[in-house]
Amino acid sequence: MFLALIAMVAVAGALAQKSSKTTADAAGVIKLLPPNLGRGESIMQALSKRQSTRAFSDKELSLADLSDLMWAANGINRPESGKRTAPSSRNRQDIFVYVTSARGSFRYDHQEHTLVKVSDTDCRPDKAAPLYVIIVANSDDASTGIDAGIVSQNISLFCSGVGLGTVCRSTMDRQAVTEGLKLPQGYHPIVNHPVGYFE
Amino acid sequence: MFLALIAMVAVAGALAQKSSKTTADAAGVIKLLPPNLGRGESIMQALSKRQSTRAFSDKELSLADLSDLMWAANGINRPESGKRTAPSSRNRQDIFVYVTSARGSFRYDHQEHTLVKVSDTDCRPDKAAPLYVIIVANSDDASTGIDAGIVSQNISLFCSGVGLGTVCRSTMDRQAVTEGLKLPQGYHPIVNHPVGYFE
Repeated sequence: MFLALIAMVAVAGALAQKSSKTTADAAGVIKLLPPNLGRGESIMQALSKRQSTRAFSDKELSLADLSDLMWAANGINRPESGKRTAPSSRNRQDIFVYVTSARGSFRYDHQEHTLVKVSDTDCRPDKAAPLYVIIVANSDDASTGIDAGIVSQNISLFCSGVGLGTVCRSTMDRQAVTEGLKLPQGYHPIVNHPVGYFE
Repeated sequence: MFLALIAMVAVAGALAQKSSKTTADAAGVIKLLPPNLGRGESIMQALSKRQSTRAFSDKELSLADLSDLMWAANGINRPESGKRTAPSSRNRQDIFVYVTSARGSFRYDHQEHTLVKVSDTDCRPDKAAPLYVIIVANSDDASTGIDAGIVSQNISLFCSGVGLGTVCRSTMDRQAVTEGLKLPQGYHPIVNHPVGYFE
């Protein structure tokens, strides 16, 4: 009976996972998959393959890749304390991760591990990749760039370790991005990362 | 004959490696070992284990760990182009890596993959770890912190991926560090990383 229950839960889980799509529910929320800690090459291989990629396939990121990308960038890696994959100056957690694509713009909620729609606007700085991560800060001092660079390199090494392309760019129409992401007062975009499969 | 020659070269190489110590030659140069691309946990495990460590064993870093640490931080990962594990704004390569310990202070020469002694001064910001990496920039604009943060996270993820402790800190006596590292005009320390084995 107990084993049958486990089997049922496993099947239900597999079905739920299979039916997961990168689409928002009625409330505009995309439920991300838990981080897959078993994937990816070694840290030394990821460092070895780190490069700046500027041309990408048109293919959209899978939900699995998008989920792990968000967690890698700035997710919670110690649920008991709420601490993150990226340190920040005096643990002020001043960096916020957004994504923008043809589907609109979304804020990564690291506590719920979800993407929450903020607007229907596609504010990709250009159209090289189907999806751009925008790294946003709500601080503005000597440590802001450092905190943002740390999240940027989480993205770069995750991508090189799992076979995705990306590049850290500071060029963007900051006003258009600020409006597209509906950033609250005091929040500003720092850098952006197109992310996609290789052509 | 040919096989015998290969065997001799292999033995000589093994002896050379075995006799390598983390000591500078007469010219003050520590020849580092080539990066060991076969070591370390996966990028997802490295992200999962990323944490800030503030207490360390007294044990000095091995030459192998010190070598891979320098390469991971900002070494050349594409010898054909001279490009690095860390991107920089407009590829200006404005970030320089130094180490300081009881042995004195050294600059990482990424082209030669060596540590070059710059002074006998131990300018560790404190004595929590036997060795501190100092991240230095020769730029001073909106991208400097981002470029430095990227190198900092290379260090943090290398450490979490190979079982070393570290933390990104901005607190230090900047004048003492600038003098101890004999930084040229226009170079300034951004953050420091104690690095060591866990207690």
